[in-house]
Amino acid sequence: MKRIAIVGGTGDLGLGLAARLARSYEVTIGSRDASRALEAASKASKLSGARVLGSENGEAARSAEVSILAIPNLPSDDVLTSLKPDLGGKLVISPIVPMELRDGLFAPSLEFGSAAEKVASLLGTKVAGAFHTVPAARLLETDRELDYDVLVTAESKETYAEAAEIVSSVARLRPLYAGPLRNSRMVEGITPALLNVGKLNRIRHPSLKVV
Amino acid sequence: MKRIAIVGGTGDLGLGLAARLARSYEVTIGSRDASRALEAASKASKLSGARVLGSENGEAARSAEVSILAIPNLPSDDVLTSLKPDLGGKLVISPIVPMELRDGLFAPSLEFGSAAEKVASLLGTKVAGAFHTVPAARLLETDRELDYDVLVTAESKETYAEAAEIVSSVARLRPLYAGPLRNSRMVEGITPALLNVGKLNRIRHPSLKVV
Repeated sequence: MKRIAIVGGTGDLGLGLAARLARSYEVTIGSRDASRALEAASKASKLSGARVLGSENGEAARSAEVSILAIPNLPSDDVLTSLKPDLGGKLVISPIVPMELRDGLFAPSLEFGSAAEKVASLLGTKVAGAFHTVPAARLLETDRELDYDVLVTAESKETYAEAAEIVSSVARLRPLYAGPLRNSRMVEGITPALLNVGKLNRIRHPSLKVV
Repeated sequence: MKRIAIVGGTGDLGLGLAARLARSYEVTIGSRDASRALEAASKASKLSGARVLGSENGEAARSAEVSILAIPNLPSDDVLTSLKPDLGGKLVISPIVPMELRDGLFAPSLEFGSAAEKVASLLGTKVAGAFHTVPAARLLETDRELDYDVLVTAESKETYAEAAEIVSSVARLRPLYAGPLRNSRMVEGITPALLNVGKLNRIRHPSLKVV
């Protein structure tokens, strides 16, 4: 069974992804603090009905073939670079959406490029952008089918296919290839637009489908 | 009955919008060339089953309360400025998506800002961004219900409501407020992402729903 590390996975997104993916993969939640990772793993196990492990970020990443960076915003270059030895040569999935609040509404916060490209350049490994528009709150409702589309960016079709298999393992999530990493800026920009639409039109936890 | 001008409306988007909106509004297709406008109006009338008028752009805009700029890409500042006398003080709807092809995939072409903001600043009138993700080919299939969501940007809730009413007049299109015009960049960026997803995953004429 493929092993997946959810790096920085003690927040809602990490817990939700761990709980969902543990049904098909051996999942380890990583945290800078091993005891917080174990606590989150125990919560995710209960949500999932399958066992989730917990350990320090580097250890979690080293023992896995795939790492998901379940970090709400783009980490500093230092943090990313510190993970390089443990993540090098493996698939890294970035659900990171760099955004900020301006007058109560969301907007992209990067002036150029994307989180996925930044992660790829600092980690020097193959990266896929995915899960940006899947609401963490819905992942946590583990009895709910998630009838959403997930846009995935990746430099090659092979990397896309590897990430798409993981996306497909969750209920009714449908992966859709959105092109190479340079397209990540467009894909990461959809999340703040969706959150604004949710807020302004009272749609809770908005996500999207391509029709 | 409210009068709507479809400025530059002889292409598929203009024909499709004219054919759909003529069922609820008095619609005039505008073109730089009055005879081309009349020809397009005759086509749109046949598609619609309701009468569509045709005239030169300025004349079409002058006689209407609302103008839709059915132009595929952002026109030059000169073209926009030349329309100012005829559009001033009225609602202008911009479905314009500034994009370009790069290695066979679409990408936004503006380095900063958005078409809607540019139109607002050059015309000095109230502007709503809308219809960006409604495929022209589907508008032309006038028997087809369009079960899509339409993100609308506008500086005020009042301008949004005016544009939303026009969106709602078409079959099952659902308008959703996406915030003030500064959010147009995000909304205009969704179209190239959708077109890429369509191309890479063989989804013909992709559009979107917020779920």
